[in-house]
Amino acid sequence: MQVALLGGTGDIGEGLALRFGRDTDHTVIVGSRDADRARDAAAEYAATLSERDADATVEGAINPDAAARGDVVVLAVPAYHLADTVESVAGELGESVLVSPAVGMQRSEGGLHYNPPGVGSVTALAAQAAPDDVPVVGAFHNLAAGRLATLDADLGWDVPVVGDDPDAKETVIALANQMETVRALDAGGLAGAAEIEALTPLLINLAANNDGLHDLGVSFQ
Amino acid sequence: MQVALLGGTGDIGEGLALRFGRDTDHTVIVGSRDADRARDAAAEYAATLSERDADATVEGAINPDAAARGDVVVLAVPAYHLADTVESVAGELGESVLVSPAVGMQRSEGGLHYNPPGVGSVTALAAQAAPDDVPVVGAFHNLAAGRLATLDADLGWDVPVVGDDPDAKETVIALANQMETVRALDAGGLAGAAEIEALTPLLINLAANNDGLHDLGVSFQ
Repeated sequence: MQVALLGGTGDIGEGLALRFGRDTDHTVIVGSRDADRARDAAAEYAATLSERDADATVEGAINPDAAARGDVVVLAVPAYHLADTVESVAGELGESVLVSPAVGMQRSEGGLHYNPPGVGSVTALAAQAAPDDVPVVGAFHNLAAGRLATLDADLGWDVPVVGDDPDAKETVIALANQMETVRALDAGGLAGAAEIEALTPLLINLAANNDGLHDLGVSFQ
Repeated sequence: MQVALLGGTGDIGEGLALRFGRDTDHTVIVGSRDADRARDAAAEYAATLSERDADATVEGAINPDAAARGDVVVLAVPAYHLADTVESVAGELGESVLVSPAVGMQRSEGGLHYNPPGVGSVTALAAQAAPDDVPVVGAFHNLAAGRLATLDADLGWDVPVVGDDPDAKETVIALANQMETVRALDAGGLAGAAEIEALTPLLINLAANNDGLHDLGVSFQ
């Protein structure tokens, strides 16, 4: 399988690229609006994985080319770039499964707060922007990027996954479960994305307010 | 200290009464709109604790009397009864700390969804309904009642706590930390209550969609 990470030069993209590169046998395609930046980031991730003797294939491509190749296409971009990014690759998605991990947040009253778009969640915004025949799955919303990119760190995190297309959701659950020390869970339909996205500002607020906690994820037990 | 549980005859009240009774040396006052029901529930909880050789004091009282005695007063009532309950005891609260654990949810599109009141969260609604000089703290939103009331069950859960009054929040954090296998965490100001409340429908949806998971709580790690 080929996994494309649009905006894969960013911090969440780096972590996903390194984990997918190390823990799966999928080809990872790092996408960017700029082909040189995509290639540079891919080379850097490949070097990191090679130092660890991981047998990984990581390539760079401009976003539409990455999207065209990806069986799974992850929108690893900030929430405010999400709709534009989907539109810029809409003609290339073919049979791809589109994955939305972005969260809208704003800072106010002493902390971060969930700030969803009018359609209810960022994941729903991705579904609205995507072509009708492209299934959209919400996943990877609650991953702390710094720890994700630190390959020595065990995560112990759960990844709640939502979507209205059962096959697409199953594909993403299986992909996430291939990441070591991660457990993917079915959180139901796309309408449940807001509750998952809202967890991210809570994780950040908890790290900010409690000594010794940082780069938090979530475990359901 | 005396801990009053308004609506303490309900399922979350039962669990809190049993855990506070077993794990702390505070007097637990089970409140109800009906004095007989309060006394019956208190006697039942006391018997359960006595069978386990727990040295607990559990008493029953009508809600306003329970509120008058409580140093901490927990609104263990459904979200749609919360404002009425606060108003019914408002004159009795004195120096109490008021605790709001309720969550508004509605079922739609194949799952439960967070359904906050217009003021932004149920905890904020409690703050709005309470007298100005009574500090309101949000806590205990994410506890699965059945497992909470099963004293043999280790929980392994975190309890995020929000509030704008630092002393009141610290009182509730200390109280929650006295519960065995529970860790209370400071989640910031009251404005962060919505993100915590929204977790509860997610926990229920995860239990509904994944074999082997039930009565879920959350651990931040």
